[in-house]
Amino acid sequence: MKLAKPVVRKLLSMYIEEDSYYGDTTFTLETDVRAEVIAKESFILSGAEFSKLCFELCGAKAKQLLKDGDTVDRGDKILKIKGVSSHVLIAERTALNILQRMSGIATATRKIVEAVNPYGVKVAATRKTTPGFRLFEKIAVMHGGGDTHRMSLSDCVLIKDNHIAIAGSIKKAIEQARRASFTKKVEIEVSSVEDALEAVRCGADIIMLDNMGVKEVEKAVKEIRRTGSVIIEASGGITPDNAEMYAKAGVDVISSGWITHSARAVDISMKVDRE
Amino acid sequence: MKLAKPVVRKLLSMYIEEDSYYGDTTFTLETDVRAEVIAKESFILSGAEFSKLCFELCGAKAKQLLKDGDTVDRGDKILKIKGVSSHVLIAERTALNILQRMSGIATATRKIVEAVNPYGVKVAATRKTTPGFRLFEKIAVMHGGGDTHRMSLSDCVLIKDNHIAIAGSIKKAIEQARRASFTKKVEIEVSSVEDALEAVRCGADIIMLDNMGVKEVEKAVKEIRRTGSVIIEASGGITPDNAEMYAKAGVDVISSGWITHSARAVDISMKVDRE
Amino acid sequence: MKLAKPVVRKLLSMYIEEDSYYGDTTFTLETDVRAEVIAKESFILSGAEFSKLCFELCGAKAKQLLKDGDTVDRGDKILKIKGVSSHVLIAERTALNILQRMSGIATATRKIVEAVNPYGVKVAATRKTTPGFRLFEKIAVMHGGGDTHRMSLSDCVLIKDNHIAIAGSIKKAIEQARRASFTKKVEIEVSSVEDALEAVRCGADIIMLDNMGVKEVEKAVKEIRRTGSVIIEASGGITPDNAEMYAKAGVDVISSGWITHSARAVDISMKVDRE
Amino acid sequence: MKLAKPVVRKLLSMYIEEDSYYGDTTFTLETDVRAEVIAKESFILSGAEFSKLCFELCGAKAKQLLKDGDTVDRGDKILKIKGVSSHVLIAERTALNILQRMSGIATATRKIVEAVNPYGVKVAATRKTTPGFRLFEKIAVMHGGGDTHRMSLSDCVLIKDNHIAIAGSIKKAIEQARRASFTKKVEIEVSSVEDALEAVRCGADIIMLDNMGVKEVEKAVKEIRRTGSVIIEASGGITPDNAEMYAKAGVDVISSGWITHSARAVDISMKVDRE
Amino acid sequence: MKLAKPVVRKLLSMYIEEDSYYGDTTFTLETDVRAEVIAKESFILSGAEFSKLCFELCGAKAKQLLKDGDTVDRGDKILKIKGVSSHVLIAERTALNILQRMSGIATATRKIVEAVNPYGVKVAATRKTTPGFRLFEKIAVMHGGGDTHRMSLSDCVLIKDNHIAIAGSIKKAIEQARRASFTKKVEIEVSSVEDALEAVRCGADIIMLDNMGVKEVEKAVKEIRRTGSVIIEASGGITPDNAEMYAKAGVDVISSGWITHSARAVDISMKVDRE
Amino acid sequence: MKLAKPVVRKLLSMYIEEDSYYGDTTFTLETDVRAEVIAKESFILSGAEFSKLCFELCGAKAKQLLKDGDTVDRGDKILKIKGVSSHVLIAERTALNILQRMSGIATATRKIVEAVNPYGVKVAATRKTTPGFRLFEKIAVMHGGGDTHRMSLSDCVLIKDNHIAIAGSIKKAIEQARRASFTKKVEIEVSSVEDALEAVRCGADIIMLDNMGVKEVEKAVKEIRRTGSVIIEASGGITPDNAEMYAKAGVDVISSGWITHSARAVDISMKVDRE
Repeated sequence: MKLAKPVVRKLLSMYIEEDSYYGDTTFTLETDVRAEVIAKESFILSGAEFSKLCFELCGAKAKQLLKDGDTVDRGDKILKIKGVSSHVLIAERTALNILQRMSGIATATRKIVEAVNPYGVKVAATRKTTPGFRLFEKIAVMHGGGDTHRMSLSDCVLIKDNHIAIAGSIKKAIEQARRASFTKKVEIEVSSVEDALEAVRCGADIIMLDNMGVKEVEKAVKEIRRTGSVIIEASGGITPDNAEMYAKAGVDVISSGWITHSARAVDISMKVDRE
Repeated sequence: MKLAKPVVRKLLSMYIEEDSYYGDTTFTLETDVRAEVIAKESFILSGAEFSKLCFELCGAKAKQLLKDGDTVDRGDKILKIKGVSSHVLIAERTALNILQRMSGIATATRKIVEAVNPYGVKVAATRKTTPGFRLFEKIAVMHGGGDTHRMSLSDCVLIKDNHIAIAGSIKKAIEQARRASFTKKVEIEVSSVEDALEAVRCGADIIMLDNMGVKEVEKAVKEIRRTGSVIIEASGGITPDNAEMYAKAGVDVISSGWITHSARAVDISMKVDRE
Repeated sequence: MKLAKPVVRKLLSMYIEEDSYYGDTTFTLETDVRAEVIAKESFILSGAEFSKLCFELCGAKAKQLLKDGDTVDRGDKILKIKGVSSHVLIAERTALNILQRMSGIATATRKIVEAVNPYGVKVAATRKTTPGFRLFEKIAVMHGGGDTHRMSLSDCVLIKDNHIAIAGSIKKAIEQARRASFTKKVEIEVSSVEDALEAVRCGADIIMLDNMGVKEVEKAVKEIRRTGSVIIEASGGITPDNAEMYAKAGVDVISSGWITHSARAVDISMKVDRE
Repeated sequence: MKLAKPVVRKLLSMYIEEDSYYGDTTFTLETDVRAEVIAKESFILSGAEFSKLCFELCGAKAKQLLKDGDTVDRGDKILKIKGVSSHVLIAERTALNILQRMSGIATATRKIVEAVNPYGVKVAATRKTTPGFRLFEKIAVMHGGGDTHRMSLSDCVLIKDNHIAIAGSIKKAIEQARRASFTKKVEIEVSSVEDALEAVRCGADIIMLDNMGVKEVEKAVKEIRRTGSVIIEASGGITPDNAEMYAKAGVDVISSGWITHSARAVDISMKVDRE
Repeated sequence: MKLAKPVVRKLLSMYIEEDSYYGDTTFTLETDVRAEVIAKESFILSGAEFSKLCFELCGAKAKQLLKDGDTVDRGDKILKIKGVSSHVLIAERTALNILQRMSGIATATRKIVEAVNPYGVKVAATRKTTPGFRLFEKIAVMHGGGDTHRMSLSDCVLIKDNHIAIAGSIKKAIEQARRASFTKKVEIEVSSVEDALEAVRCGADIIMLDNMGVKEVEKAVKEIRRTGSVIIEASGGITPDNAEMYAKAGVDVISSGWITHSARAVDISMKVDRE
Repeated sequence: MKLAKPVVRKLLSMYIEEDSYYGDTTFTLETDVRAEVIAKESFILSGAEFSKLCFELCGAKAKQLLKDGDTVDRGDKILKIKGVSSHVLIAERTALNILQRMSGIATATRKIVEAVNPYGVKVAATRKTTPGFRLFEKIAVMHGGGDTHRMSLSDCVLIKDNHIAIAGSIKKAIEQARRASFTKKVEIEVSSVEDALEAVRCGADIIMLDNMGVKEVEKAVKEIRRTGSVIIEASGGITPDNAEMYAKAGVDVISSGWITHSARAVDISMKVDRE
């Protein structure tokens, strides 16, 4: 997935504005400077391309030394920047915040990906993201080796417990979902084996087993495979600690809100010097 | 600190758009529904006012049952909502994402606040926030009992290592900062006792001791107090685990990037039923 | 599919601004007026809900008398409006333009839907819409009984001739499409029976037969059905005149750019009177 | 009329966002490509300058081979594009939609222009345009040889039946219009010879004969010319089929909503190849 | 001229954001308050309607006690406001800035209007306005009894010295202006009697005599009246001090940049009390 | 203080749009031109950097010949511009309006600065600015040698009479202000010596003596200096005429609303010639 440049420019401009609506009051010395953005720990890099653009939108020149998705070690240089001091200093914090958070998400994602990869299982994100930063968080998941899953409510149909409650039954909920475009897959969230099988019979394309224990997931997978050909996703409270167990249970995909809503930011800093 | 309504409306509208630019494809049944937003664990509540507004901007009616800053227990009801199904369901995820992240930050902040409170020490945030969600994260810190510190580069002067490097010396950096408005305090980040004392002598209002060990902070505090009357802030790698030790070292303020960039989101869900 | 209110408000506000950035220069008499929006010919109604909102955003009160999707006859009243003259007159043209164009599209869509319905075939739109009005045109297709197909490049994967040219082969193009989310269907546009079969074998979910004659489509459908279980879509130059023939050829879906890019606007007017 | 670049950039960015808010999911292969935008039929070109800018805003290089207003034949190359595949493919549909619709309008306009030109009559557009695309549709009319007429309610005064109904009489409606700036012409829409003459006597600058038969227009023109010196415009249901008859009737201007609200889009495609 | 509500809401929201992007840091006590906006000197009121809307957009209730265009005396109450303290205090400065500047412009305009009124002469504004506040400044001119003249470059044609220099001659400049819509008047700025007469002969609708002395204007008016029927406007350095002399010279309109770019703001304050 | 480029671009684009939403109707001749922006009187230059950017955003090339803050004489050339006629002419008025108003403010500020400078007194602006142009007006004050004071409600705490009225007393108002960040200074507006001393005792950092006579200010200064170490600011009706007297009275800062809300614009023009 590639974002359109006008969309990226709009979002980055808004982020920079958020950090300097009334300008930078700290510094008034205008001199030419050089700067380097440096990793202070090991992680999976994400956000380098957008971080570079931040400096450029503020008037500085920037060069990307490492690629998004790369494994980075402590001391590695990510960007080189050249420009007038005020341009570089105004972009700094926004550029680092993007890098620190996106790389944190990519790193968390990669940990789960590596745990479940040997079992041929995919890792997917959820819509539990930070408001205003969703697009970048989803891309960080991609850089970590994960699947973006639904970008928004406008993506594939995903029937949850609330939808079923309103519709009256799994059957009715799936039936009404047919009114969405034939171009969309229909996914449904269930929390029991019975509901899973009912959903398969009603024609769902993807079955999400939500908040079920590993044993129950294992059982559900077996029965679902017997009933029809669908993609099986496990979700709910999955972290690097328990991901492998779910993978062994035979699902196709593991989705995790944790990788976007609670991943730790990584440590990155910028060093500036007079030209 | 209170945000202006037009600013809040603009940001919330953007967050809702981010989750449903092309509309909600999952559900087409239009019926009247009731919903409740419920805590799934204990935490400090933050975001209830904004979450309520999300539902209202989407066309539903919402009532806030608990106040931001309140301590919430598992099972507590935060909001009651009434409205047409599509209005409620389109607002849901954005409203929950706001609550989960803001409450996570407020809860993390409160933990440090409680650890350092007995020593008369304040907890402050940094600018290490999520791009696009800064204003709300700063308010979550307030709800947790913390101080927002600088909202942006436009707030008080904060001279960092990069500024000193460009200016040539602490003295020159503080001198040029005088060009900022007399209405602004001048804060400076130092990492040695010598630099701290030099900064006090040059007229800084706030001395931030950055990334210094507890022992060194203790020593710096003593010598700074002897030299002049300034606010002393400790920063760098402070979490609930080590905050108390820094408080005991005699600083006035402890600032923590961790509370905004790496706090865990809390668990909150919404339950919808047909009217 | 339901649009989020904040998105609708933003778009309608922009449309009203487009017609009155510097205000209305024609009229300065402020009196209370009543108005009616009236159909001047028969058509399928679309845009009534948005049209109503236009008047409300400009300060007037409006009541919707007919529902989007309804069949409307010459002389039927669509909306009743009450308010101050300047509010009603500023909203008028934008409200009518929305109604006239959306109803034109819904009516054109319905014509094809009725032609192919007896054969169990769906009608879908394309992305050949008017820039700035896409969302409303897609909803007009829905009101006409059609399927929105892809709202944007962000929806399901759709591999076209240009993608195949760059990738080198149908196989490579489908393979790389796997990097998109597992939640997305993979559609591919082909213009020969051979390519269609190759695409089925490579795992495409939807085969679009583009710009092929009816005979060839018939042949393709037969061979595709023999090879695998996919959705078959015919596209390219389809209008009410030839839609039935394609439907008879056995496809599942007929998609038409004509319904959005070249449908005739219907005739609707507004009549204002002093209260 | 020339649009300001910042206005054009804002609109084009919005159009591109509308087609790719969440990015392009189809294609992930990043290679250098060349592309050509090619006419698939004969038409009057419009939108080439804006189409070129679309590609540039997305990061590609584009060269315009033909000028807006030119007559284009099947097979003619309109633009040459060079760039990274994702940049070119994200811009494609929006660029083509602009060209197809604007050229469709220019072509429709030119047809009427050619029919009425020999009689020294001008062709003008109306405000019956597509919401969100008004500015570009008006420019397409110019490329077709037409007159933009009012860009918006903020342009010249145009008194319609609804204004007269509220004001109470033609006289009162024209009198209150005097409160608008002296820099504005006053146009009035009438549907009878009597009203036309009354309007001339009250000082209108332009008389629009609305929805009147050719015979009646002929009669009105004669009497108006005898009464005063004004511009006479015929409007209402005018298409290429009947335009010449109205021109012969002696009016100065013919205005047509049809050229913007119901013109057929022309056929244009883009061909991409690996560099 | 009446502005559209969505345009007004957008501008006022931006003005409020400009004064409180990061919220109000001064006050944290939330109580119900009453407030009054009071004139501290005599002036022509302008901006009361927009000022009222400012309070409403911030969440307070407001009642307008005087109408825009009214003559206001020291001590007169303009608005009454009721609401939560933070809502009232956030709106205060923006609401007062709008009132003070708009009323200043209306008052300056009225002074010239009263000086030239007895001679049947109109007063018009120019485009020398404050960027970002143009629309409101033009409306203030209206409230003062003046004519808005061109709202923007998009209004009537106005040929200036630079256009003539580029075109090569007055004749060529007017000829090319014919390419603008027939709905637009053609105004031309000249600074000699000869050029004025040439412009009349070439068909200009309005002749602006720019920066000419009163004697020369008098002479020009006589000769222009002899040559053709046009509107004559005097412009350049006109203030309340010299306006009457220009009016006596026989022009139809006097335009003044001074009323918008250099009018003194009037004194207005707000008094708040606890409910 | 330095503004971020994305913020400046957004504001300038909006200003240009405000002057040409529907394009420039006057001129259709596209030729290459040169232009010069020339001072028509003596003043302090401000806005040259932003004015230059206006031309660039419209597509022309511009070179800045003088620096913001420079003293400019009649006839001095400020900018040289090169480009296509439509690009240069669309930017002209906005670029000049920025220069004329900002230089007017800088010039007014400089006058007061020069009057109070010998006494070591600073000149500060207020929030009495033109809505939509605040940021530029504050920067103009800086170019004139003044202090921006609060950019917005989000800057330092400033307790006014209304806040004291709501809080109940100076003491309570200052106490609640402590809830704002420790990074903010606390300023309070008083109008009597007693209140001033009470404010000093309650811990205010800055005392603003509002609308007090010179004698009373003198007395207040003496007593305040005896009571504590604070910054003393005089405000209310200060213009170049009376500023020196207040400076002599011993205050540290003089703040003036007049320099932003009522400064006269300076005279600047642009001369264009064919290349």
